Amino acid sequence: MQKIKGTLIPIGGNEDKGIEADEMYTLEFIDEGILYHVVKEAGGIDAEIVVIPTASSIPVEVGENYLTAFTTLGCNNVTVLDIRSKEDSEKENSIELIKNADCVMFSGGDQSKITDKISGTTIHTILVDRYKNEKGFVIAGTSAGAMAMAKEMIAGGSASESFIKGAVNMYKGLGLIPELIIDTHFIKRGRFGRISEAVAQFPKLIGIGLAEDTGLIIKNNHFEIIGSGMVIIFDGRKIKHNNHSVLKEGTPMSLTNLKTHILSNGDRFNIKNKKIEVLPIEAPFI
Amino acid sequence: MQKIKGTLIPIGGNEDKGIEADEMYTLEFIDEGILYHVVKEAGGIDAEIVVIPTASSIPVEVGENYLTAFTTLGCNNVTVLDIRSKEDSEKENSIELIKNADCVMFSGGDQSKITDKISGTTIHTILVDRYKNEKGFVIAGTSAGAMAMAKEMIAGGSASESFIKGAVNMYKGLGLIPELIIDTHFIKRGRFGRISEAVAQFPKLIGIGLAEDTGLIIKNNHFEIIGSGMVIIFDGRKIKHNNHSVLKEGTPMSLTNLKTHILSNGDRFNIKNKKIEVLPIEAPFI
Repeated sequence: MQKIKGTLIPIGGNEDKGIEADEMYTLEFIDEGILYHVVKEAGGIDAEIVVIPTASSIPVEVGENYLTAFTTLGCNNVTVLDIRSKEDSEKENSIELIKNADCVMFSGGDQSKITDKISGTTIHTILVDRYKNEKGFVIAGTSAGAMAMAKEMIAGGSASESFIKGAVNMYKGLGLIPELIIDTHFIKRGRFGRISEAVAQFPKLIGIGLAEDTGLIIKNNHFEIIGSGMVIIFDGRKIKHNNHSVLKEGTPMSLTNLKTHILSNGDRFNIKNKKIEVLPIEAPFI
Repeated sequence: MQKIKGTLIPIGGNEDKGIEADEMYTLEFIDEGILYHVVKEAGGIDAEIVVIPTASSIPVEVGENYLTAFTTLGCNNVTVLDIRSKEDSEKENSIELIKNADCVMFSGGDQSKITDKISGTTIHTILVDRYKNEKGFVIAGTSAGAMAMAKEMIAGGSASESFIKGAVNMYKGLGLIPELIIDTHFIKRGRFGRISEAVAQFPKLIGIGLAEDTGLIIKNNHFEIIGSGMVIIFDGRKIKHNNHSVLKEGTPMSLTNLKTHILSNGDRFNIKNKKIEVLPIEAPFI
């Protein structure tokens, strides 16, 4: 596993943006919330933050929401880069922004839009290169923006009550963190079945189910959990029964002996050896 | 573990009742559906079936729905026993019905209503006694009716994105199957967190998450899965980190090394030794 110098922050969607009070947010937006951590990892309020709302069907509004949220946190150097085509990803202006950014933040929406418009472009190359080689360079993404970070990306799939082969669609993501398969809105949208099928297809990868307003700070082959919700980790390396490869599409599946961890704010996971480092009980929120 | 002669059929809620076509029902109501199995286990269409809609806030309508559903299946001996108080559970007529029934079916609603009105009554004693000692006697229950079968019953609890101590309320159920903790509507209502907390509280019990239109036939210390959806089994006997007992209420929890199985129609589980018997791939629906 290559030594990576940058930081990834995948987020489960619907993170607190400091705009309206919502019962689900139990952390202080200004000094405990997810976006606070994004800013902190990027170097603080003077960091150059580039928001890419490409996944969204309403990119202008989404871009403005993030401008407001980051401004509320005191940031003074935030730009929205509204990439709508592969050509946009090759424009001089886009390339310059990505080259100079301290943090690139992908919004939610449809993850396939991110891969369609960015995969294989100059921007993609720069993102991968800077993430690998530059300490302090942050790529954050929420919902679709988090899922697109994987190499084996969940492109879609219903939250069916049944666990049926073919219910999940896999596609190639940006490949920033090839060891993980990432799903988001995990609890609220009942995505247990679809990540399990993804893990059944790729049992050597670790399945990550991110709840809303919850994220990971991935750095140096470890991640640490931030935010108000839970993170479910599915380790399929010791699966016993896994009939995925031989089943017909549409057939109910069985998958046994899946090792599962439920982690919260401050807990850590070693991506290399798949070990957990749980926070001591007396520890504060990070 | 005592040798039990009767049959329990807990169902995850929203089982096909043959009334309206719904995309989620993939089985033929008449010869593959959950209620077909209930009738079959009870001895066929001449079985005396007693429907108890006590959990429901609209017991009359719910009772009628089940009358219609069982009649559609050809049953000719179905009675609704609308117990609304502990006194109702001591009435001669109620006791006679339960004594003579081949199958007692509890509807969905609020499981606390079942325990409030039935626990500790003569009807409760007869149900436990007949289930233990009479081969072919069936107790079925859907949603609330399934959850009430446990000894450690999930009485309520939100499907929060976070995994926080105190989010689940446990109460004493009817105690028919003390080895299991049962949750229902498992996928659709995102109940991953609440059953995990229940298992964290009672790590020696097996947590069962039943999807809608999915059930178990529990007989002779084994269960077999019926219906169109999935069943998630949480085996917490080898949990490593479990800070539940020391945490304050409202604090995020961590729970690691939870063994998880995802099973489908026809798969079997041995309750005694906690082993799985997965169906051969070529097997038909049961």
